[in-house]
Amino acid sequence: METVTSLSELRAARAELPEHVGIVPTMGYLHDGHLSLAERARDECASVVATIFVNPTQFAPEEDLDAYPRDLERDLGLLKEVGVDLVWMPALKGMYPDEFQTWVTVDDLTQVLEGTSRPTHFRGVTTVVAKLFNGVQPQKAYFGQKDAQQAVVIQRMVKDLDFPIEIVVCPIVREADGLAMSSRNTYLNPEQRQAATVLYRSLSAAKAAFEAGERQAEKLRAVVAEMVDAEPLAQLEYISCAHPETLRELQGAVERALLSMAVRVGKTRLIDNLEVGR
Amino acid sequence: METVTSLSELRAARAELPEHVGIVPTMGYLHDGHLSLAERARDECASVVATIFVNPTQFAPEEDLDAYPRDLERDLGLLKEVGVDLVWMPALKGMYPDEFQTWVTVDDLTQVLEGTSRPTHFRGVTTVVAKLFNGVQPQKAYFGQKDAQQAVVIQRMVKDLDFPIEIVVCPIVREADGLAMSSRNTYLNPEQRQAATVLYRSLSAAKAAFEAGERQAEKLRAVVAEMVDAEPLAQLEYISCAHPETLRELQGAVERALLSMAVRVGKTRLIDNLEVGR
Repeated sequence: METVTSLSELRAARAELPEHVGIVPTMGYLHDGHLSLAERARDECASVVATIFVNPTQFAPEEDLDAYPRDLERDLGLLKEVGVDLVWMPALKGMYPDEFQTWVTVDDLTQVLEGTSRPTHFRGVTTVVAKLFNGVQPQKAYFGQKDAQQAVVIQRMVKDLDFPIEIVVCPIVREADGLAMSSRNTYLNPEQRQAATVLYRSLSAAKAAFEAGERQAEKLRAVVAEMVDAEPLAQLEYISCAHPETLRELQGAVERALLSMAVRVGKTRLIDNLEVGR
Repeated sequence: METVTSLSELRAARAELPEHVGIVPTMGYLHDGHLSLAERARDECASVVATIFVNPTQFAPEEDLDAYPRDLERDLGLLKEVGVDLVWMPALKGMYPDEFQTWVTVDDLTQVLEGTSRPTHFRGVTTVVAKLFNGVQPQKAYFGQKDAQQAVVIQRMVKDLDFPIEIVVCPIVREADGLAMSSRNTYLNPEQRQAATVLYRSLSAAKAAFEAGERQAEKLRAVVAEMVDAEPLAQLEYISCAHPETLRELQGAVERALLSMAVRVGKTRLIDNLEVGR
């Protein structure tokens, strides 16, 4: 497994890789969710490139950029074990030189859900993903369903800008008790960690209600909200029942929906989602 | 010479082209300026792709999108004669489907000069050029120095987003009397056509002043402004003496500068530029 930092090193190493190439973009501090993306890429592509870059432009000033967990040595060991061929770890100044001033923005899809409380987040995501795509030039790119809105936004960007890349969205990987894997779970103390199971528990309760015949979007949201309210350490930021592609909030009877939520447990902000109706 | 319209046709035809590929993006109604780009690409690349697309997103609502001149048959004849291999003529709905919502923007460089009176223009340019680049995947791309700010903005976009593409900026091609070739020159009646020579005449006068020792940016701008004021059919929109890469307006003594200007002759808006000091 080769590792590179500069764009010129990347281009040289990329040119030697057998086609097709799959990319797995990460911010490091890898967990089984990331590794499931790399394994899927390994199965589907001749070569796999992983990237590790804690992208500052997707953090707001008050967010956890500086605290974001890092363990590069462990990450590289895990990626090697999975069979990744090349790891690109760009330097901050290489990605964002002083005169940097170009942004990729997706309009409507970024104005809801995560975009409501994180207005500059997706601009940072789409810009860095466009840069990673242009650097690596993969045929396939792997993202996790955990960040459901991110996956929808990136699919829109790829289609709108005609990137010749297929986006593969992989299922959420969960801990034994249902908590969606996230690098941010490391922020939780034991009591908070226990409380954090409320995300999956409440989404699962709404899904059970759906499967028992409840079709009203308002009711499905209420099932989740009431369970989170009952958890003293958790504060609900939003619960959405939306169209899975347009992300428009649904009213009345639904046939198919993305249930997604953000919750604060202490200072830690967690997200999760489940699809119902397919 | 092959012609394609849909993205899938383009991708299939592109896959057959010998590398390296040069792209010549145009809005059609070709003149010798465009053809000089295609000839340069022909000299430097194994294959040449020209695109013809009157891009609506770079026109403001009050601008001349509907009036923009078109002559597809003639254009194709000229491109064939030059030795272009493939022409991509995307359909409007293919480029901008109803749900389109992704934009590429360059910040500071687009806020001056042309950006002052055309605030959405460069967003349309950079977005469509990103799409053309992702569609054609060229190694080199050819633009004219006539649109000096556009060339600077696109070079910034390519660098910031890591497109693996070299931008080649080709010299302005002029009529015998110095008027820079432009598809919009066709809007001019004979009196206006004569008056339009004031752009090059005034820029040349400023350059002569520079070469005779005048180094003050204010004086160089004044030379141009006074000559345009003396032309009854011409109205100066701006005259700039700016740094050729940052486009920042210069004050006091200059060693090297981009002199650029926009002038209205009747309803027709014309631009031109000259570099001094190299």
